[in-house]
Amino acid sequence: MNPTLLDRELAGDEGPSLQERLPVHCFGCGVLNTKGLQIRSRWCGDECVCRWQPREEHIGHPGVVYGGTIASVVDCHAIWTALSHACAVDMLELGRDAVPFAYVTGRLAIDYLKPADVAQPLVLRARIVEHGARKSIVACRVMQGEITCATAEVVAVRVAGVR
Amino acid sequence: MNPTLLDRELAGDEGPSLQERLPVHCFGCGVLNTKGLQIRSRWCGDECVCRWQPREEHIGHPGVVYGGTIASVVDCHAIWTALSHACAVDMLELGRDAVPFAYVTGRLAIDYLKPADVAQPLVLRARIVEHGARKSIVACRVMQGEITCATAEVVAVRVAGVR
Repeated sequence: MNPTLLDRELAGDEGPSLQERLPVHCFGCGVLNTKGLQIRSRWCGDECVCRWQPREEHIGHPGVVYGGTIASVVDCHAIWTALSHACAVDMLELGRDAVPFAYVTGRLAIDYLKPADVAQPLVLRARIVEHGARKSIVACRVMQGEITCATAEVVAVRVAGVR
Repeated sequence: MNPTLLDRELAGDEGPSLQERLPVHCFGCGVLNTKGLQIRSRWCGDECVCRWQPREEHIGHPGVVYGGTIASVVDCHAIWTALSHACAVDMLELGRDAVPFAYVTGRLAIDYLKPADVAQPLVLRARIVEHGARKSIVACRVMQGEITCATAEVVAVRVAGVR
């Protein structure tokens, strides 16, 4: 990865998000999916961060963010965390270099701890727990202010495929 | 629960789904949420079954159902499985009797085994693994034909609240 770009990422600036550098059609994260959730993820230090505002229809019980929507944004954010970290390890710059692999979700486990208010943004903070040749493990917290609404662990499996 | 109704459910008939008996606004299962996924669940023997057709936008990689959407339908279907089973245990009929409790998701864990084709319906088959005073554990398989696309375990937590 270009050191200058990495520096900007570490500083958590507002340059293009990971998803804007590699446009896809995924419902959760694709900038090309106009009906989707369109999350945006950026590195900030050793965390990959996503701030996302649910829409009013994304409720489970009234006023509370739907658990399935939380699972959805966690899933995508963790996959982008794994992919972009693997690119950095392999000295590839997302959006500039051809990336000869992708990541898919092998396992997603979420513990729901507190209800999240649908009127407030969710902040997802993800870290790489383990990085290997075949899979990465990503831990993610879902926050609203100081409240941890959920914690999750995602097993991201590396598969072949030029992106 | 009314034995006649239970008999019909055991036979897997096409009477009102669980969700139609108790209309809510949940994004995943609420018949009142016009922007939501609107799943429908019915008992068939000792399994609670949901057949659901993804929309074309519900993709992760091209042509493949988005994992977050699978997590969403599993979440809701498991909660309705736990709720309706608890109603049967407590001799309450969903949609007729006031139900003095609800279930919320405490933990959702999904293993993604095979890609699911977005053009084909998903069939979710859920069973009660454990039923206690404070929580139920539900196991769910996500099928397309004979293919098991995912397996999941949901911890459904009982909370007070008249429905």
